[in-house]
Amino acid sequence: MAEEGENVVYVGNKPVLSYVLAVITQFNNGSEEVVLKARGRAISRAVDVAEVVRNKFLPNVTVAGIKTGVETVESPDGRMRNVSTIEIRLKL
Amino acid sequence: MAEEGENVVYVGNKPVLSYVLAVITQFNNGSEEVVLKARGRAISRAVDVAEVVRNKFLPNVTVAGIKTGVETVESPDGRMRNVSTIEIRLKL
Repeated sequence: MAEEGENVVYVGNKPVLSYVLAVITQFNNGSEEVVLKARGRAISRAVDVAEVVRNKFLPNVTVAGIKTGVETVESPDGRMRNVSTIEIRLKL
Repeated sequence: MAEEGENVVYVGNKPVLSYVLAVITQFNNGSEEVVLKARGRAISRAVDVAEVVRNKFLPNVTVAGIKTGVETVESPDGRMRNVSTIEIRLKL
């Protein structure tokens, strides 16, 4: 899991570029590491964000590590459901 | 990229369990490593496959590494488009 004081960008359903901008802003503010986190279908978008950051904006950024996992969340109908998660660690 | 002679399962739009079964079959046939590959929206499904294999069927399987990348593909209208890719290396 993410450590305390870490720079995390949670990737959800907004356009990829919103999250790309968030990542670039964090690096521009002096962060050396930004962690992208996503669950379920947003996982593909988190990978898009990492690749766009690296290939179009900040070529010096590398992927320092990727972890996957599972979280149990309650769905609207009250049942418990397992959702896959991803954590992509970007380093400048 | 995948090396020659490697056991690869390409994850597409079928249900998660189809790919889980494919992975389990490869491990049961004596493979020590199986690589899941996916592009675009199927990336989330590839993570689901890895997590279901590990958490429900083969608890001894570990994720030996995850790589992301970009591929350029031609879309039906003839334009070139970048698509994110993922490679999840599972080890028994």
